[in-house]
This record gives sequence, C-alpha cells and structure tokens, in this order.
Amino acid sequence: MAGNLDKRVERSKTVVLAETYRQLRESGISGVSIDEVSRVSGVSKTTIYRHWPSRSALLIDACSRLGSVYTAPDTGTLRSDLLALVTNLAEQLQTATWASVYPSIIDAAERDPEIAAMQSELHKDFMAPFHAVIERAKERDEVKRDSSAADLIAMTLGPLFFCRWLSKAVIDKRLIDAAVEAAVKAARIE
Amino acid sequence: MAGNLDKRVERSKTVVLAETYRQLRESGISGVSIDEVSRVSGVSKTTIYRHWPSRSALLIDACSRLGSVYTAPDTGTLRSDLLALVTNLAEQLQTATWASVYPSIIDAAERDPEIAAMQSELHKDFMAPFHAVIERAKERDEVKRDSSAADLIAMTLGPLFFCRWLSKAVIDKRLIDAAVEAAVKAARIE
Repeated sequence: MAGNLDKRVERSKTVVLAETYRQLRESGISGVSIDEVSRVSGVSKTTIYRHWPSRSALLIDACSRLGSVYTAPDTGTLRSDLLALVTNLAEQLQTATWASVYPSIIDAAERDPEIAAMQSELHKDFMAPFHAVIERAKERDEVKRDSSAADLIAMTLGPLFFCRWLSKAVIDKRLIDAAVEAAVKAARIE
Repeated sequence: MAGNLDKRVERSKTVVLAETYRQLRESGISGVSIDEVSRVSGVSKTTIYRHWPSRSALLIDACSRLGSVYTAPDTGTLRSDLLALVTNLAEQLQTATWASVYPSIIDAAERDPEIAAMQSELHKDFMAPFHAVIERAKERDEVKRDSSAADLIAMTLGPLFFCRWLSKAVIDKRLIDAAVEAAVKAARIE
C-alpha cells in the first residue's frame, strides 16, 4: 500500500515537473501558470502545493533541468582552454533553449529572492569549468596568482552574452578570438 | 466640444501610461496587467485597447520612457571617451530602474516580435554615443578604419552587463579600466 502511494506521488510529481518544464521552455518563467500546470497534468493545485510550498520552489526544480554539463578542458594553455569553453558556449547561446529562457530567470531574480538564490547556484555550476582552467593557469604561473578570475571571466564571456541578448549580433569566431585574447593578455605574466 | 473630448482622451491616455509605467518599474514587463491598469486608472479596457491596439503596443510606449539621454563626450582620445561613457553606464547599471527592468524586455523579446523590434530601437539609441566616439577615433586614425565598432562595444560593455545580471559582482573601477583598455588595444593601430 505505502509502496503504491509512493509510486503515485512520484508519478504526479513527475508529470507536474514535466509540464512546468514544458511551459518554462516555451514561455520563460513568467509564462508558467500553476492553473495551467494543474489542468494539463491532471494534478490538483492542492497536491502541487503539497509537493512544492511555493510557485518559486516548483520553478526552481524545473530550472535545474536547464543546465548542461560541461567539463573543463586541459589543453596546456589558458588561451586554448578558454577558446574551447567559449566556442562551446557561443554555440549553445545561439542554439540551446536555456539561452532563451535564462533572461526570464534574470528578470524574476530581480524581484524574487528565492529565484535569485537559484540563479546564483546555476551561475556557480555554469562557471565551474572556467574557474578550473584559470586555477590551473595560475598553478602553471601563466597568469598572475593575484589576478581576478571573476574579471577574467567577465571579460571573456560578457561580450558573448552582450551579443546574444542586447545587440543581437552573430557571435562569430572573430569576436570569440578577440575576447579570449584580450582577457588572457590582461591577466598574463609579461 | 471636440477640444474637450481631445483633452479627455489625452488625460485618460496619460493616466493609463503612468500606471503602466509604474507597474513596469515595479514588476517588469511580465508583471504589467491590463486588468490592473484599467482598475487603477479608472479607464475601461475597451478604451485602453482603442488607444493601443495590443498589450505590446502599450508596453512599448511605457518602455520608451525608460531610456536616459546620453551625450557623446569628446575628450580627444578613444580611451578617455569610452572611460567617461562606461563609468556613467556602470553607475546606472547599479542604481537606475531600467537596469532592473531591462531583463524583462530581453525576456519578452525572445517570444514577441513587436517587443523585439522595440528592444532593437532602444538598443540603437543607447549605443549611439558609443558609435559616435568610435567613429571619431577612426577619423583621427586612432583605431583601424575597418575594425568592428560592434565588437569594440561588445568587449567594452559586455563585462559590465555580465556582472550586473549574471555574476552579480560589483562593477568596480578595476574591471572598467581593464575592459576599456582591452577593447581599445584590440582595435588600435599599433
């Protein structure tokens, strides 16, 4: 009996989360409607709120599916490690669903502290491989040990996000090369 | 009679726009509700839709109030022109309302072509002084005439927006100097 109940609970959580994720991908955070999630999934709002104490809690669960797993390359130089990571990111920015949904997370985070905390976690996961390659570059004395990894990352990635979300310019190899080159030069031991 | 009617029309447009702008500042684009605008302003939805054919049209009118007017400095060098512009932008990113509302425009633009067209206009106005100082630097043969103004702007401003909306890091003088320096170096005639 308890086993069947557990299975039913798991099943309704799964369908609710799947429908929330579908709406999230389609319309961003602000487009997710609990009424609509309940209607489509056939799970009552009371049950939904039993599993997730707030709309934000459900959104956070759905957003955690957006990320993609990255591994830090180890090519021997910071420039080529960054080029590999940034080329991959540029490709994702121009094709992956998360690149279209992420502005809705940034927007919601401006006003909702729970979403802001979630964005901060997503960002940390997302930046881990960048920190890893910079850390190794410091150990090799390729960049100054006291140089700011945060600045280096902002200089490398900022131009790409600027193109994707603000200028809507194509992110081409020329910009990627220029951004990586400039960031590495700024931090490098001369 | 016609004059009085015109005045009444103007007055109701003004209150509708003011309330829309208030909601926009408070909650971003997705938080603007026409029902609520109608309730607070006392102007019927029928009348609102007579003046603005769609919710997007009203939002576009309200968003056009967000921008702030910038003039292009003319200090004699690209580096110091950019430093002046970027220092001002950094200040605004950390204090102005538009910096908190803009992600909701980016989000809506991902799915609404009317909002996307409006964002593109806002962006163009916003970038005009940057293009002006780069144009003058080209005329002075300070930077290569065939260098990309778009890349230079993305490299200068991208890191700031990255900090404001993604890493949530403070935008300090060190980052501003590094970003401007790197962008100018990349475009400069050696």
